Amino acid sequence: MIRLSDIERAAEEVGKVAVETPFSYAPRLSGASGYEVYLKKENLQNTGSFKIRGAFNKIASLNDEERARGVVAASAGNHAQGVALGAKHFGIPATIVMPETTPLTKVDGVKSYGAEVVLQGSNYDEAYAYATEYAKEKNRVFVHPFADDAVIAGQGTIALEILARCEKPDAILVPVGGGGLISGIATAVKALSPETKVIGVAAEGAPAMKLSFDARQPIDTTGVRTIADGIAVRDTSPTTLEYILRYVDDIVLVSDDEIANAILYLLEKQKLVVEGAGAVGVAALIHKRLSLPENAKVVTVLSGGNIDVTMLSVIIEKGLVKSYRKMKLVVTLVDKPGSLMKLTEILKEAQANIVQIGYDRTSLDLKFGDAYVSIALETKGREHQRLIKELLHEHGYRFEEEH
Amino acid sequence: MIRLSDIERAAEEVGKVAVETPFSYAPRLSGASGYEVYLKKENLQNTGSFKIRGAFNKIASLNDEERARGVVAASAGNHAQGVALGAKHFGIPATIVMPETTPLTKVDGVKSYGAEVVLQGSNYDEAYAYATEYAKEKNRVFVHPFADDAVIAGQGTIALEILARCEKPDAILVPVGGGGLISGIATAVKALSPETKVIGVAAEGAPAMKLSFDARQPIDTTGVRTIADGIAVRDTSPTTLEYILRYVDDIVLVSDDEIANAILYLLEKQKLVVEGAGAVGVAALIHKRLSLPENAKVVTVLSGGNIDVTMLSVIIEKGLVKSYRKMKLVVTLVDKPGSLMKLTEILKEAQANIVQIGYDRTSLDLKFGDAYVSIALETKGREHQRLIKELLHEHGYRFEEEH
Repeated sequence: MIRLSDIERAAEEVGKVAVETPFSYAPRLSGASGYEVYLKKENLQNTGSFKIRGAFNKIASLNDEERARGVVAASAGNHAQGVALGAKHFGIPATIVMPETTPLTKVDGVKSYGAEVVLQGSNYDEAYAYATEYAKEKNRVFVHPFADDAVIAGQGTIALEILARCEKPDAILVPVGGGGLISGIATAVKALSPETKVIGVAAEGAPAMKLSFDARQPIDTTGVRTIADGIAVRDTSPTTLEYILRYVDDIVLVSDDEIANAILYLLEKQKLVVEGAGAVGVAALIHKRLSLPENAKVVTVLSGGNIDVTMLSVIIEKGLVKSYRKMKLVVTLVDKPGSLMKLTEILKEAQANIVQIGYDRTSLDLKFGDAYVSIALETKGREHQRLIKELLHEHGYRFEEEH
Repeated sequence: MIRLSDIERAAEEVGKVAVETPFSYAPRLSGASGYEVYLKKENLQNTGSFKIRGAFNKIASLNDEERARGVVAASAGNHAQGVALGAKHFGIPATIVMPETTPLTKVDGVKSYGAEVVLQGSNYDEAYAYATEYAKEKNRVFVHPFADDAVIAGQGTIALEILARCEKPDAILVPVGGGGLISGIATAVKALSPETKVIGVAAEGAPAMKLSFDARQPIDTTGVRTIADGIAVRDTSPTTLEYILRYVDDIVLVSDDEIANAILYLLEKQKLVVEGAGAVGVAALIHKRLSLPENAKVVTVLSGGNIDVTMLSVIIEKGLVKSYRKMKLVVTLVDKPGSLMKLTEILKEAQANIVQIGYDRTSLDLKFGDAYVSIALETKGREHQRLIKELLHEHGYRFEEEH
């Protein structure tokens, strides 16, 4: 197991490619949670994620001969970019094995750092199996995404930056998937500020480490499903579990809905793009998943920002409906000239902006002569939606709200 | 006109409510533009915009008697929040006049700082007229969003932070609307680093200050229309024009499409939410609107992050189509059992994910027995889209692409 000195040594290396990411007090999140909340914005790290720290420290820790042989990794995400950028810095070959379904933007991202990309396997496990084989065959160093002491030491450097900016926080919230990040952070924190609680936050859809933590032994799961793909890890690594059992105080779970809310909150209130894995701490704060004393000083690590914009767009759309800024109605109209105009007049009167409209008069459950109009409206909040519905009722419309 | 010493004095005041926002090198944007690009992330400022600096300095510059009477401002945006937060700090009353159409979230944002909100007028001009009248009537201080020396001095404090982090940049790009931000920044820059060019970037849809700069006299326009609502200013203020004519080296224009591209770029590559006005500098960089020497050291001010998430969602959707990550096709099918299944089989073979589908067999331009299927597909890039279209052609489908 690594010690504080390993992390301090890692910090010297990591500083060559990683920046000290911004750290700041979050007034509104403090108000919403009842704690004094600080954000460590690792989503603004080079490559958009903390993973560069561990990957780079691993490559830096190799001897010249090992390094010259080149490195191999399996990842469709942040680890891939970290390894690629690290290898580029040392001018050594890197091969990243990615599942065949990997989006082109991610493939191109890794290639832009000069790494070779091999598309292999229909999922991460198959890519991983191929990569370890490939590394053995080609006599190259395989860089594991978390079950590796040099990687863990690299991730731990975040804790040094946090503690340099914030004296004795009461708790640090850390996303947990494979457990590399929290192992490194907890090692540093328990050496430097032993009274600070280190609390892991995992996704309900990927609870392996939480189950293992509770059972105090490695438990694997059969499948994972979460929007937080960066922490969607199925099996528990004994390496990181050992650190976690020794140093981590608790692990809590958050749901995908809670994570989506947190992503939208960070986007709107903090002006930050944070991926699912990076938003779990904020999800735990907003949704009161923690039982810390009132006004406790809490740091949450926004571990990365590499979320697909398509996913972001879906999260925004759903979030608008949930927060009463968008409403979808299916109104039954008499199918004759002028009836749609009458409806739009009423909606104008209610100051509801129509952003989408559909018209159907062939549904089996309609009376002949009637039609369904499905409309999406921009609204100003809950009260505004109530007023719109009242106005429609007053004018005798039948309608249903879609959720 | 203010001098450097006014800005230095403002910095002491402004530091009480504003944070020193992150400043960092942007490797990818440098690669894309051919310059050495640095970002001043004022979107991460408290209230999500630089406006708090000027508003706060104005309120701080009042004497106790003036301040006790309270302040009034007209704004549906960043200035409103700046004035509200500034007034809250001093514990004085603030009234913000907003147009009646202001979204509830913005009204609530200002109210959350304890300000009184008056909804008045159907647009900004009417709200502004009401606010100045209201201030006179109630004997309160009206805080202008830009045509005010104390406000200009407050905005200029950004330049001190930039120059403390970056020695002698070749150019600083500053969004231009009313001109308060660039007046303050240029005053400081020309005193401290006279060889640094200060370049304004305005929206094509709101070119008043650009026209005035070129004509060297105030020119008003008849209307504005741009997604960069923070710089959508119709008339030229003689106050800020005087600063601009004295200190600013050039003003360039960018289009709404270019601004939208920049917003998406910042979202995806920098993990930052930046509003239209804040993204104009990056738009100018990406779209080569500048003629600076190769590798010039260029700082761009991301002035704010308060963009409506609905707008963000539209920008993402359009951006996905433009960057070949989404494709919309209208395919003509024979309207019989199995023909849609056949089409979906082919799309699966092409690894194109269907995200939306519509079916229409009643269009007048269809032969009887045919149907239109409109589909939106997630694709992996330009080459992938070419392959999908080729495959459809091979199978004899007629289709059109929607743009």
